[in-house]
Amino acid sequence: MDYRAVETTDEYVARLSTGADWRAEIEALAEEVEADAGWFTALGSVRDAEMWFYDQEKKEYEPVYFDEHLEVAACVGNVSILDGERFAHTHAVLSRPDGTALAGHLDSAEVFAGEVHFRKFAEPLERAHHEPTDLDLWL
Amino acid sequence: MDYRAVETTDEYVARLSTGADWRAEIEALAEEVEADAGWFTALGSVRDAEMWFYDQEKKEYEPVYFDEHLEVAACVGNVSILDGERFAHTHAVLSRPDGTALAGHLDSAEVFAGEVHFRKFAEPLERAHHEPTDLDLWL
Amino acid sequence: MDYRAVETTDEYVARLSTGADWRAEIEALAEEVEADAGWFTALGSVRDAEMWFYDQEKKEYEPVYFDEHLEVAACVGNVSILDGERFAHTHAVLSRPDGTALAGHLDSAEVFAGEVHFRKFAEPLERAHHEPTDLDLWL
Repeated sequence: MDYRAVETTDEYVARLSTGADWRAEIEALAEEVEADAGWFTALGSVRDAEMWFYDQEKKEYEPVYFDEHLEVAACVGNVSILDGERFAHTHAVLSRPDGTALAGHLDSAEVFAGEVHFRKFAEPLERAHHEPTDLDLWL
Repeated sequence: MDYRAVETTDEYVARLSTGADWRAEIEALAEEVEADAGWFTALGSVRDAEMWFYDQEKKEYEPVYFDEHLEVAACVGNVSILDGERFAHTHAVLSRPDGTALAGHLDSAEVFAGEVHFRKFAEPLERAHHEPTDLDLWL
Repeated sequence: MDYRAVETTDEYVARLSTGADWRAEIEALAEEVEADAGWFTALGSVRDAEMWFYDQEKKEYEPVYFDEHLEVAACVGNVSILDGERFAHTHAVLSRPDGTALAGHLDSAEVFAGEVHFRKFAEPLERAHHEPTDLDLWL
């Protein structure tokens, strides 16, 4: 386990714009407040979603599409620098009108409504290639 | 995307009372510490739950009832002012003994056990009618 | 509802080690930073998981095993003292490659990748037997 002390310099709440992309909106917030690192939790609802599942054997992401209306029951993620750009690593739990849940790495989804709490850290987090998993990880 | 800087003035942990209502307990905490805005995450277990799903076409909530014992695997939400009252907007992921997950907007559930982390913000958040979604949103 | 004001003295981000146990890694972090209480949210992926479901009638945990590769879509929990040891009470939402979600009390899982945000509280939280639920709860 690798860890690092961080300091939250600023905190924000955001309302994501209806019709925009969920993850792009979080990255736009990070851009706007010049956060090179931060942590967020969020909730809301979306229309259509593309989730990615990482195949731990093949070491590649496989997309799954949900072309429907979904609640965002829980969303947890962080902002860091990936290839010189701000990247919002976003996991989410979505749900259908009958309550059944879908979950995973959220690549994109059209915002219907979204409420986010974001903490900006003083120290940047930068992702680099991690040999054992073939993922880009920070620390 | 609309956002606002917030300042956490106080932080609390709470243990929800067995037999009480999950969301009402969070609102009671907000009342007790005089929080007009705040953010929370929580976990625990409940008996029976009423979840609401917002129909994005009809623009109305449809309830779904789960009259069973469920774990609260993740709960994310915020406190704001709605029609002059403190309101805990609460999304949650619940689960059955076989591990299957149910998720959405949690209107009510009887607490079996509940552990909450709540951050009180200095600035109030007030909900108002939002034309595009017909929801009450803050900012 | 019982509550207590807490003060976050330090904040950390951690990357859990591939191949280690998810919950043990969080407890190792608490040990390393000498936290007798704290709150965390996390995301990542695991191989195999043992989840526990508390039977609210029989008052005992029943384990369920998922011997497969899973994303950790959301993880919420807290660190407290249980029988003199640091204990990470950990709930999580996991998911399969087709997006279906599994959720509950996470006892153990082999980390593939894990990203954690941990807040250390100044005040200890200590668990004690709670008669109505037969669980060990703090406050």
